[in-house]
Amino acid sequence: MEVMRILHMNKGNGETSYAKNSTVQSNIISLGRRVMDEALKKLMMSNSEILSFGIADLGCSSGPNSLLSISNIVDTIQNLCPDLNRPVPELRVSLNDLPSNDFNSIFASLPEFYDRLKKRDNNDECLGFDCGRGGPCFVSAVPGSFYGRLFPRRSLHFVHSSSSLHWLSQVPCGDVNKEDGVVITAGLDNRGKIYLSKTSPKNAHKAYALQFQTDFSVFLRSRSEELVPGGRMVLSFLGRNSPDPTTEECCYQWELLAQALMSMAREGIIKEENIDAFNAPYYAASPEELKMAIEKEGSFSIDRLEISPVDWEGGSISDESYDIIRSKPEALASGRRVAKTIRAVVEPMLEPTFGQNVMDELFERYAKIVGEYMYVSSPRYAIIIVSLIRIG
Amino acid sequence: MEVMRILHMNKGNGETSYAKNSTVQSNIISLGRRVMDEALKKLMMSNSEILSFGIADLGCSSGPNSLLSISNIVDTIQNLCPDLNRPVPELRVSLNDLPSNDFNSIFASLPEFYDRLKKRDNNDECLGFDCGRGGPCFVSAVPGSFYGRLFPRRSLHFVHSSSSLHWLSQVPCGDVNKEDGVVITAGLDNRGKIYLSKTSPKNAHKAYALQFQTDFSVFLRSRSEELVPGGRMVLSFLGRNSPDPTTEECCYQWELLAQALMSMAREGIIKEENIDAFNAPYYAASPEELKMAIEKEGSFSIDRLEISPVDWEGGSISDESYDIIRSKPEALASGRRVAKTIRAVVEPMLEPTFGQNVMDELFERYAKIVGEYMYVSSPRYAIIIVSLIRIG
Repeated sequence: MEVMRILHMNKGNGETSYAKNSTVQSNIISLGRRVMDEALKKLMMSNSEILSFGIADLGCSSGPNSLLSISNIVDTIQNLCPDLNRPVPELRVSLNDLPSNDFNSIFASLPEFYDRLKKRDNNDECLGFDCGRGGPCFVSAVPGSFYGRLFPRRSLHFVHSSSSLHWLSQVPCGDVNKEDGVVITAGLDNRGKIYLSKTSPKNAHKAYALQFQTDFSVFLRSRSEELVPGGRMVLSFLGRNSPDPTTEECCYQWELLAQALMSMAREGIIKEENIDAFNAPYYAASPEELKMAIEKEGSFSIDRLEISPVDWEGGSISDESYDIIRSKPEALASGRRVAKTIRAVVEPMLEPTFGQNVMDELFERYAKIVGEYMYVSSPRYAIIIVSLIRIG
Repeated sequence: MEVMRILHMNKGNGETSYAKNSTVQSNIISLGRRVMDEALKKLMMSNSEILSFGIADLGCSSGPNSLLSISNIVDTIQNLCPDLNRPVPELRVSLNDLPSNDFNSIFASLPEFYDRLKKRDNNDECLGFDCGRGGPCFVSAVPGSFYGRLFPRRSLHFVHSSSSLHWLSQVPCGDVNKEDGVVITAGLDNRGKIYLSKTSPKNAHKAYALQFQTDFSVFLRSRSEELVPGGRMVLSFLGRNSPDPTTEECCYQWELLAQALMSMAREGIIKEENIDAFNAPYYAASPEELKMAIEKEGSFSIDRLEISPVDWEGGSISDESYDIIRSKPEALASGRRVAKTIRAVVEPMLEPTFGQNVMDELFERYAKIVGEYMYVSSPRYAIIIVSLIRIG
């Protein structure tokens, strides 16, 4: 499975599109806003001489969320500058995602984005994309994997990424044996499952954890080249509280999807060996794993690390002990909504293995299974929000 | 007519797509290669200290030509550096076109582009997009009109644009009267025609010439902000030799298209008033008009200005007096090919006025008319190639 090719959200504006089913991700962006604003404020205060400010949003996707993060960043900077008694710097904004992302649809909404920025300043005279209060704003798109270099050396001041870093660069390969310097990789033995589960063998745990460490380390190394010393990153993504990578909060959405797939395999609609062969290029890391990767790589220090629960429909949970009580019809309706948000994200990666023709059936079953589960439980994701500083 | 929305080449990879019908534009890129290489060499020789080299291709379109220009530029720089005994600088490459351009299809071919650059150096170890001989290459896309600012201040060293600057920012509005500071614009009176023609009224000539002067001046002013002093531009586009803007070489492709449209209007297939209302946002400038705009704007000096004939199928014409003798079937086949190249470019701008359903019929008639004409004549475009230096 080529992650580069199949990791993209459902395109277009249809019923199953990511554009129509991305409120969970939008809520995660909102959840990280306070930490992001704080990081931008500290950055602006300690770098009063910046005339041209480089910003990147990694894993921008398509749909309404694509311009939401950069809108927030531009707003925050423009509001901060008068308080800091300095002119708004020129803003160089880069939107990044894999080349298979639907950039055309983002570009279609760019003129409106620029118009909004212009109007706020009531400045119709300005040439090009002057976004008001003295600072022009230049948006570009940079297609490519963030597990590698994307930007010129020391060209960025601030990096943001939301709901993206739980995706790995590849599906882990299983056992790695070094014999006479030759690396032998074997397929991952994870029968009847599509992500880590209570029944997954220990080598699957190791393989996933190792892939995360490798990927996150490459991510940090790449960004360390691209950020100026003192530059900052705010990253939010799905993770876990527990050291155990098979707890409900970090893998139950996959567990239930595997149940839906297995029910179809039992009826002969899909092949069980395809389920055995499929593993999600996903990892929900723990804060400890994250800290370990950051310390080992050495270019960044942690300014803040938070972990927040969000329910499966994207609602924030203020009281950890709070359980959502749903009637059966409410729970089934929730199940349908949750299934749609998951479908918008994982359908393109399931299709090559299971076929496009079974997707409706699969996600109907999944909706029902999720609904039943949400009647008896209040499942949640654990969102890690980390604010990092480029040491230098 | 909103040029921003309708000026894009035919999308996709089908029979009528620009991707399949863009050899004329590819030949124009080749025609400008010598001048471009010369400009890059002079630029590299006079700026030995550049560590990060900013390059923009304006009006990159989609299809095989989109990465052709930047491939050529990267090749030339990489070949020049060893001769000049200096390392290859970091290359920051920006691809620009209007937001309605099909950037997704360019991005789909980017991984292959990077692979080719990497392979040439046999360097599989490098992180990210190292394009060999020591210099990494970072490609980004910048959607927006080049008649306005696109890039940060002084971020570019070299700007290239091919087959794009004959497109205006808008259809000229006709008479412009200033009364008490109020600008009144009237529709352009150009009955039965879709571009300047022998029968077009004088105010249409003036309106088109004025629109070109305005647009080209904004283009130069915008680039003068973006280029470093000493930075260079090489621009190639359709123009004309003669001071008369209604000579065959600069408008006959439109004249014949108007004939095809008028034949359909006579048969009641389309409305004649729609032809009267439609005018192409196009202008074929003369070298004198170009020089005037450059001198008036004042930021650039002309290093070289050439004008070369190219036949309607994109073949270069070495001997000015040479006429291509075609048999009737050959001429009709040529007509079909020429009609396809024109259709790939102008169909999206004709559709909103005349309707999608008449396009096949229109271009069949056009192919025939062009074929008949190519039996009795050897029509050609006049390609202006100009190499400019940012004064500073």
